[in-house]
Amino acid sequence: MSNRYSFIGGKQGLWRVVEVRSVSGPSLELVERVNVVNDAIAKLPLDSAWVIQSFTSNIRYAMHDEVKVLQAVQPVLNRSEAVSAVLIPIKKSAQWWEMAQDERRAIFEEESHHTAVGLEYLPGVARRLLHCRDLGEQFDFLTWFEFAPEHTEAFDELLVRMRASKEWDYVEREVEVRLERDDISRT
Amino acid sequence: MSNRYSFIGGKQGLWRVVEVRSVSGPSLELVERVNVVNDAIAKLPLDSAWVIQSFTSNIRYAMHDEVKVLQAVQPVLNRSEAVSAVLIPIKKSAQWWEMAQDERRAIFEEESHHTAVGLEYLPGVARRLLHCRDLGEQFDFLTWFEFAPEHTEAFDELLVRMRASKEWDYVEREVEVRLERDDISRT
Repeated sequence: MSNRYSFIGGKQGLWRVVEVRSVSGPSLELVERVNVVNDAIAKLPLDSAWVIQSFTSNIRYAMHDEVKVLQAVQPVLNRSEAVSAVLIPIKKSAQWWEMAQDERRAIFEEESHHTAVGLEYLPGVARRLLHCRDLGEQFDFLTWFEFAPEHTEAFDELLVRMRASKEWDYVEREVEVRLERDDISRT
Repeated sequence: MSNRYSFIGGKQGLWRVVEVRSVSGPSLELVERVNVVNDAIAKLPLDSAWVIQSFTSNIRYAMHDEVKVLQAVQPVLNRSEAVSAVLIPIKKSAQWWEMAQDERRAIFEEESHHTAVGLEYLPGVARRLLHCRDLGEQFDFLTWFEFAPEHTEAFDELLVRMRASKEWDYVEREVEVRLERDDISRT
């Protein structure tokens, strides 16, 4: 299986778009659906407005003990009840990327408690982090979240807490794409 | 300028191949020249035997103080006297990549002194680290070194020390490509 994922905004795919909004900086064009393809794609498919190319990678900040706790409680994607999804592409500032590893780690966890806060919302909210910056994309990362509709309020609270953190001082563009899975009637 | 670099083994390019040898695992095919292209390439050019795609990225292990020391002494590439180059593609084990950030950092620096040892060979040896693993390449990284011929012995000693380190227990494939720049007569 490829480590590459392409998120294609257009008229195809399992996930129907409910809302596209900018949190910081320019938004993405509103589309009907997002097609999540587990591969790199050479060019934008017909009938599509945008594509974000990305890859999964090794852990960048979490320490051994944090990884163990996360692995014990984090849910998988594609749970039958998790018919709500949110796609959040983010771009951080040049200042963030110029920092050394220990400086970014200190802001990420010791100051912002990124992993610790995220843990409070497990196992309700499933999450996949994908990297884009090294591919020359317009965003640096994107995070894909999946949860059952009853966890929406908790998820919204998680976003408020993350966006109030020190780490978010370095976020210069952020878009929020809310989605629902097509087969909602079959669950 | 793109963060992407393609190293094309074939008959083109400024750098003439002196030797290709395997340090661990399968070697690369012996070629006449390596063409270093500052871009992604879509497919292997005619008359070429191999290509390694890569990108430069943010710092992964070095801490603030280490970065400051490095920045103060590291030389640039393309110095007129640096007509010797070595391309070293490396693949690390699955066990390395499954470790958390603090575990990899501890092996990289506290146990293996990667940055500290490298510093001893500056400013003689210029170096560019490139990442390949996230592109699905056969190697995880490659390092490109450039130096004047009188630093060859010191460079060889650097390699011996690195390969004797704990970090190298996790290297499962390593190839060494020695090169000379064409315009050697003009320096």
